Amino acid sequence: MSNKKEPFIKNGFSFLHLRMEKIFSYGQLQQFCNDVFIKMGCTATDAATAAKALVAADARGIDSHGVARLSGYVRLWEAKRVNAKPAIKIVHETPSTAVIDGGAGLGLVVSPYAMQVAVNKAKNVGTGWVSVKNSNHFGIAGYHAMLALEHDMIGMAMTNGSALVAPTFSTERMLGTNPIAVAIPAGTEPAFVADFATTTAANGKLEILQRKNADTPVGWVQTKEGNTSTNANELKNGGSLLPLGSDREHSSHKGYALGAIVDIFSAVLSGANYGPWVPPFPAYVPMPENMPGEGIGHFFGAMRIDAFRTADEFKANMDNWIRRFRNAKPMEGQEKVLIPGDPEREIETERMKNGIPVLDVVVEDLKKLADKFSLAF
Amino acid sequence: MSNKKEPFIKNGFSFLHLRMEKIFSYGQLQQFCNDVFIKMGCTATDAATAAKALVAADARGIDSHGVARLSGYVRLWEAKRVNAKPAIKIVHETPSTAVIDGGAGLGLVVSPYAMQVAVNKAKNVGTGWVSVKNSNHFGIAGYHAMLALEHDMIGMAMTNGSALVAPTFSTERMLGTNPIAVAIPAGTEPAFVADFATTTAANGKLEILQRKNADTPVGWVQTKEGNTSTNANELKNGGSLLPLGSDREHSSHKGYALGAIVDIFSAVLSGANYGPWVPPFPAYVPMPENMPGEGIGHFFGAMRIDAFRTADEFKANMDNWIRRFRNAKPMEGQEKVLIPGDPEREIETERMKNGIPVLDVVVEDLKKLADKFSLAF
Repeated sequence: MSNKKEPFIKNGFSFLHLRMEKIFSYGQLQQFCNDVFIKMGCTATDAATAAKALVAADARGIDSHGVARLSGYVRLWEAKRVNAKPAIKIVHETPSTAVIDGGAGLGLVVSPYAMQVAVNKAKNVGTGWVSVKNSNHFGIAGYHAMLALEHDMIGMAMTNGSALVAPTFSTERMLGTNPIAVAIPAGTEPAFVADFATTTAANGKLEILQRKNADTPVGWVQTKEGNTSTNANELKNGGSLLPLGSDREHSSHKGYALGAIVDIFSAVLSGANYGPWVPPFPAYVPMPENMPGEGIGHFFGAMRIDAFRTADEFKANMDNWIRRFRNAKPMEGQEKVLIPGDPEREIETERMKNGIPVLDVVVEDLKKLADKFSLAF
Repeated sequence: MSNKKEPFIKNGFSFLHLRMEKIFSYGQLQQFCNDVFIKMGCTATDAATAAKALVAADARGIDSHGVARLSGYVRLWEAKRVNAKPAIKIVHETPSTAVIDGGAGLGLVVSPYAMQVAVNKAKNVGTGWVSVKNSNHFGIAGYHAMLALEHDMIGMAMTNGSALVAPTFSTERMLGTNPIAVAIPAGTEPAFVADFATTTAANGKLEILQRKNADTPVGWVQTKEGNTSTNANELKNGGSLLPLGSDREHSSHKGYALGAIVDIFSAVLSGANYGPWVPPFPAYVPMPENMPGEGIGHFFGAMRIDAFRTADEFKANMDNWIRRFRNAKPMEGQEKVLIPGDPEREIETERMKNGIPVLDVVVEDLKKLADKFSLAF
């Protein structure tokens, strides 16, 4: 979902700003990430898995979750919060469910493993549902959900994260931006891929405004005291992101409920940390006290389409659904109605062809990593 | 989720308005609905099932979905769109999934049946997922989701509905208010029960403002042309409800995606009608042309807690989750942070003790039904 300017906004620039960035091919970024993960001690298989999951974010235009986070993962490994050779194991299961202990591994490695377990269970009994504990940041939720598509399955992925969001009526940060992704296969149309934070604005959107010294719209953040704010730096002052809906009058209690459901499915079901106890991503931030679980939590699902009706029937109707919505009457000034996943797919097509722009500050960060590990970049 | 005035607003009154209503006991309303369903030709079992599901809405304070709709169900039956003796059957299944043909029955009867199928499958293989076609309006989603709680399962319920909501960037009504309910058991704390329309405001909230001749806040509805409106009667002019998030700047594309997911799980998976083809609730509104499926669609899920970890461990952590969130620092002027389900449970406790207020206009409607069927009321 996007307006036409969105690809530029997502890259952190408007038409009026200089593009302080360099262009890399997908292969260059993927190879460099792979090499860094190898240097951390990952196996060749795990490094390739993690690099692919990470750079998917850059390819799809979600720049805040791609190579910009690579040095953050390295710092978590240096702080011994990420184990490069995790013992990932199923600790409890039924024919359609599993709980996986991620062994403190990279979420980028643990999550494709967990998704494969969900897919295998769906092959056997129709659906598979996997809750994960003792993991770390997993990149973009959409990537993992989409792993189900090639099996003619609906994929779902969600994760909790460290607390930045205040529930309705509260001034306290209690939930992460807790994204939900749902990928649904179609026939000749491209798949439906929804992937969104359960907040009004994702944290990455604030970072973009910070770089531009711009204000946020009303309804994205609140001050430490719970007052309305348009300061893109409000979180540094103790403020909070707001749940989808923004305020009670616009049903922020629904965004709060969605974020809570993600938290409970990801962590209370699995034995990970939840609510304000979820470990922070920046390695320098101290861990919360009295943590009730292990690491951060994720939740994955896979549903075989033909566990409901034949794949052909489903896909024909899904194509019909997509075309009907794409042809819904647009507002004046809007070209067309978008299907979830359209903007990211369009960016991916463009970037796989023309390359991926990386901000100069991120390029500098990657160069430091190259130096640290004696790699070329 | 509610502010302190909410129970009164939900009943359609503010402190400044006369309370034009009568008080009935839960038993009186339940018995009357039961008798009406019997007169329609339902079996004794189905009538009791439907009456219980319907009056649960009145008990929980969701007055728009309770006895106020009874005459609407009767009119659908008179129009032969509801079959009082439906042949409800499983038409496709795997160990963890089923598609159910509701036989054009009352959604109030079909849904508890479908939820029981989900629960049975969860008993066998950990989870159960049921998509339903050829059904009708099912009352409140939360009631059906809560049926899983007594089995120590997480329950989920969603349904599509006739199109009132415009996708982001569109002026065309393409989706229903498509609610999602998730009920999660706890230990000594009451269950977590989220139940919400995927729009900024449910249609019932507009009806309340219409009765009061009051405006809506900005962000609830748009005009036929897609402009901002505060007219609570805007839908009568061809306007639309807005997805949760209200506008693109506040992430209405997320509410649109949620409503779309509900539509696809409920109807594209099952073979029901979807998008703008979902049959309207008022029997006098003509059916859409070229309908791609049968009736309206629902989707239900049941996940056994101990398919993930022991019920005792889960419940202890769920209690901890609930207490921590309930004790989150409140904003100035707010008493406490609410857990999803708190307001409805508090209303239910109060109404089971002191009775259920029913608006005079609804009482008149029920009296007409009593006359029609030679029943006392």
